[in-house]
Amino acid sequence: MARTIGFLGPLGTYSEEAALLYDPTSGNPYPTIAAVGEAVVSGEVDEGIVPIENSLAGSVIPTLELLISQPKLFIRGEIDLAIEHYLLAKPGTNPASIKVIYSHPQALAQCREYLEKNYPQAEQMASLSTVLCVTDSFESPVPAAAISPRRASELYDVDILDQGIQDVATNVTRFAVIGLSDHTPTGYDKTSMAFTFEEDTPGSLYRVLREFGQRNINLFKIESRPTKQYLGEYIFLMDCAGHREESPMRDALSALSQPIDMLRVLGSYPRWNPEA
Amino acid sequence: MARTIGFLGPLGTYSEEAALLYDPTSGNPYPTIAAVGEAVVSGEVDEGIVPIENSLAGSVIPTLELLISQPKLFIRGEIDLAIEHYLLAKPGTNPASIKVIYSHPQALAQCREYLEKNYPQAEQMASLSTVLCVTDSFESPVPAAAISPRRASELYDVDILDQGIQDVATNVTRFAVIGLSDHTPTGYDKTSMAFTFEEDTPGSLYRVLREFGQRNINLFKIESRPTKQYLGEYIFLMDCAGHREESPMRDALSALSQPIDMLRVLGSYPRWNPEA
Repeated sequence: MARTIGFLGPLGTYSEEAALLYDPTSGNPYPTIAAVGEAVVSGEVDEGIVPIENSLAGSVIPTLELLISQPKLFIRGEIDLAIEHYLLAKPGTNPASIKVIYSHPQALAQCREYLEKNYPQAEQMASLSTVLCVTDSFESPVPAAAISPRRASELYDVDILDQGIQDVATNVTRFAVIGLSDHTPTGYDKTSMAFTFEEDTPGSLYRVLREFGQRNINLFKIESRPTKQYLGEYIFLMDCAGHREESPMRDALSALSQPIDMLRVLGSYPRWNPEA
Repeated sequence: MARTIGFLGPLGTYSEEAALLYDPTSGNPYPTIAAVGEAVVSGEVDEGIVPIENSLAGSVIPTLELLISQPKLFIRGEIDLAIEHYLLAKPGTNPASIKVIYSHPQALAQCREYLEKNYPQAEQMASLSTVLCVTDSFESPVPAAAISPRRASELYDVDILDQGIQDVATNVTRFAVIGLSDHTPTGYDKTSMAFTFEEDTPGSLYRVLREFGQRNINLFKIESRPTKQYLGEYIFLMDCAGHREESPMRDALSALSQPIDMLRVLGSYPRWNPEA
């Protein structure tokens, strides 16, 4: 039986591009990251695809909060997607005539230098998303364009005026594949985990990292996130090489009963391999 | 001679609120975080105030990039500001008549539950900022409101329809005070630092943290940030208790010549004390 994938909608977003890259045959959009998580927990879909980290904007907090708060969910895969902004307009629009450019304020900001150089006289207008800006531009009384993902150009009847218009070329978003279990070992895996300490114990993090460092386990990422109680109280998030069912990762995790308050392995899964 | 403060504009934003909290007598708005940094480096202002971390959205990447790339700049203070969204409208607007609500998409998202409950029939419209949405709402052909900081209600002739309308009560933004030198020791300080390693050395971070952990130096925050080269290469950012000119912090820093590639102390400065 074919699996069903849920992803963060609407259609036409970078999340749909990531879902199609993972599985071209199946996918349902959900309105929020939390709704994708609920659909996986309820069994409505087999797997969910949600953004977890962007190379310019950092971690995607609602995804981290979903994984930390919902113990039934595990990360079972990752997908790295290069973010490329396209300039779209109604068919036949003359680029020189464009008076208004619509997009989400974050996308407009990511294309600031391009817009100043190529469309200095065009007014920038905010839209609620990088897909809704296409219809906003259609409804404009003056010639207009929209900054959107490539996928939006396949869903709407538009001309592609330009592509790759973001100021920083290397803008990559990492997506997590979530499910009710993590992945079996493949030999090229990573493990994501979250942990907290009893308050204000100096050296606690050092004692945790010792278990990984002394076993020569490579660390890909570490991040302390403020908890909701107050800006100064933190939960730690860490990605390391290896699978939780295999040595040396298995040994490091079992050595961690002290001094950790809470340790949750968010999942072990194959590392993203763009050649695969 | 009075000092001059530069802050991230425009007038009416949370950054201006933070600047007024730090120094009620002086402040100039700048259009970007990078421009605030340039104004400090050129001597146009004595100190700059820029957002560095939000309890919901995480680190403010342009501020971290400014501090990492500009070795003349140091953090010399911090300000924690509670973020409270206000609902504003033209004087005399009947709340029951409101058809459209304007704001930056992020602010609209932060008030989603409130808007669904209290203004289910109002259309949400995107603006480029939480201040520009006030004038957007003024120009609306139908009754409109805007979601903005309190400070915006002092700059425009508006009615305050409601306040504290964000769904999560504890939304705090931390601002950094930046200058050409950091702060002298006060006895209640913290130190921010950034460092990188030679590539893929397992255990490097553990050996760094050992210098702090074994000296009982409290760790407030740690974060690995992808560098611009590729999503997988990281710079580490860390905040610890103590001043770089005083033991034990001074000893830990001097022990760190190995195995760090690059270590930059971003500054030592007094910890924020809301009672002060």
